[in-house]
Amino acid sequence: MKHFYQPEVKPYLITKTLTPENQETPIQFLNSEMVDAKLFYRRNHFSYPHFTSSFYFLPIEGLVQTSKTFSLQELYSLPSITIKVILECSGDKRELFQPKVFGEQWEKGAISQGIWKGVSLRTLLKFTGLLHTAKEIVFEGYDYGERPDSSQMFSFARSLPIEKALEPDTIIAYEYNNQPIPFKHGFPLRLIVPGWYAMASVKWIKKITVIDKEFKGPFQAVDYVYYPNKENDKGKFPVTTIHVNSTIRYPLNRQLLPAGIYQINGFAWTGKGIITKVELSIDDGQTWDICQLTSKSEKYSWVPWIYKWKALKKGEYTIKSKATDSEGNVQRSEPFWNRKGYGYNAIDIIEVKVE
Amino acid sequence: MKHFYQPEVKPYLITKTLTPENQETPIQFLNSEMVDAKLFYRRNHFSYPHFTSSFYFLPIEGLVQTSKTFSLQELYSLPSITIKVILECSGDKRELFQPKVFGEQWEKGAISQGIWKGVSLRTLLKFTGLLHTAKEIVFEGYDYGERPDSSQMFSFARSLPIEKALEPDTIIAYEYNNQPIPFKHGFPLRLIVPGWYAMASVKWIKKITVIDKEFKGPFQAVDYVYYPNKENDKGKFPVTTIHVNSTIRYPLNRQLLPAGIYQINGFAWTGKGIITKVELSIDDGQTWDICQLTSKSEKYSWVPWIYKWKALKKGEYTIKSKATDSEGNVQRSEPFWNRKGYGYNAIDIIEVKVE
Repeated sequence: MKHFYQPEVKPYLITKTLTPENQETPIQFLNSEMVDAKLFYRRNHFSYPHFTSSFYFLPIEGLVQTSKTFSLQELYSLPSITIKVILECSGDKRELFQPKVFGEQWEKGAISQGIWKGVSLRTLLKFTGLLHTAKEIVFEGYDYGERPDSSQMFSFARSLPIEKALEPDTIIAYEYNNQPIPFKHGFPLRLIVPGWYAMASVKWIKKITVIDKEFKGPFQAVDYVYYPNKENDKGKFPVTTIHVNSTIRYPLNRQLLPAGIYQINGFAWTGKGIITKVELSIDDGQTWDICQLTSKSEKYSWVPWIYKWKALKKGEYTIKSKATDSEGNVQRSEPFWNRKGYGYNAIDIIEVKVE
Repeated sequence: MKHFYQPEVKPYLITKTLTPENQETPIQFLNSEMVDAKLFYRRNHFSYPHFTSSFYFLPIEGLVQTSKTFSLQELYSLPSITIKVILECSGDKRELFQPKVFGEQWEKGAISQGIWKGVSLRTLLKFTGLLHTAKEIVFEGYDYGERPDSSQMFSFARSLPIEKALEPDTIIAYEYNNQPIPFKHGFPLRLIVPGWYAMASVKWIKKITVIDKEFKGPFQAVDYVYYPNKENDKGKFPVTTIHVNSTIRYPLNRQLLPAGIYQINGFAWTGKGIITKVELSIDDGQTWDICQLTSKSEKYSWVPWIYKWKALKKGEYTIKSKATDSEGNVQRSEPFWNRKGYGYNAIDIIEVKVE
């Protein structure tokens, strides 16, 4: 007897644009502490870079005592560290801002988490030394192209202040989830800056340069800057640390549910410290209950949470989640509105109907 | 010299749910008159059905003069017709309703178009005849399961009034885009009801039954019904013909554009008659210009349109598209709100910022 084909059913990334490739993860599939590379959101400013592995070396130059160029083999042989890290696009949840802002309309899935292995940048800097005038370190990726605001060509390049660059957890990574980093996520070397929004974690590192001033590249001084005003640039300041945040993963927004008992669940995260509490409201914020955290809260990682809901009464419900971190940061009802739409972290909200 | 892997960049469907599978198309990739099966939105009420091809026969029974069971070979040997048809989920654009409604939050991509080949249902009914009491014809699919509102099992089944069933273009299709219908889209036989929302086009047809009353299955009498009131069922009526509609495919909503000249484009469609006019406004509906239709307007098909826009002045723009059909139907500013969110067809709106 010939059987009909039984089709494979699997989730896909949500395609925003293809040139450059920008795709996010449907949040209901962010259900692992090590997100599979296939479901890892993709965020690019340019087309994927072209370069050849036989010529891949990592130079560290500028205001160092001795410039040095590392081969991949050299890097692999140095003492490594392995850390579980969230990467969250600073535009994650951008589409939720009111008033609406322009740019890629990321929903809640421009976030991922996995295990990164690499060498501390400070380990590499011990080989080169730093001049006392050193102020920032610039990381240039192999990806480049035109920006909409200029006909000049730019590489994607970002800097870190020396103090952040020297933190032991700031690493030059070469593995993701125990495999070489997938090409789309920065192979062979990606800077990983735990606790900062992911624009800092430069992919396909081409060169590291120590400088004595503030780096002014457009991905530092134009983009990835909070502009609190719609019409002018007053009060601007750079995007850095991830804000305390939480996302309801289940149920889905606007889902219809038969009356019954549900395990509402989601995850919560922050850039500095750890998540200490997640609260949930099923009555639009009038009353709040404590959620159960289902694993240990750790630095740089999201913590999954659950909440058992006896949804026995028919009607519409507005469900909200609110996270608090060890630094005393709490999600608020209103996000910090900014013109380019970075760092959204208002209390998460979904609406469901029990039938 | 070893070259690094150059990754494939391709669009995916937007995953809404996997059990059952519901995924829509990112509208920017609906750029062909024959949508590739891989980008054809998927809309299911149940898991994919199990059945074996060696036992596949199509029975027509009920109020006929002679019941008859057709083999696939018999169907393939009968005179066929081939038509280009839009399938649009009646929940397409549901997420745009204000006030918001519950259910799958389809954006603008629960729509597709392709070439279907099959046998007119009326050709098959000539073999069986119809009793004079025949009123509706019921099409039952192989897919079945529990509904949220009941613990009973239901097949997906829908009826057509005799007049619609006998239209020559109502076909039992076996090919999509010159290939056997993909399993996920109804292999081996799918009813195609051109001009009606796609819930009518029953997949994996198991049985056709002629009846003398109104069919009351839940996918006919509970779902796929317009309920104009939020709190009661007064004034309800069934979802049938596709409403006149248009979608702006480019630019994307909330896109940032450098000043320049752009070819705004999209497509327009209707369930009855043909599209006669598409108008575009770049000033939030204050003034309207005529768009160029880039192919002949045809029954059952969408017509692509373009509009050349000199976007030289910086600022924010609200762009709207409005289609008119040969029946005199015109898209309006406000959709016809209904509790389950079917048939959204308000004027399409995007906002962009020229920098």
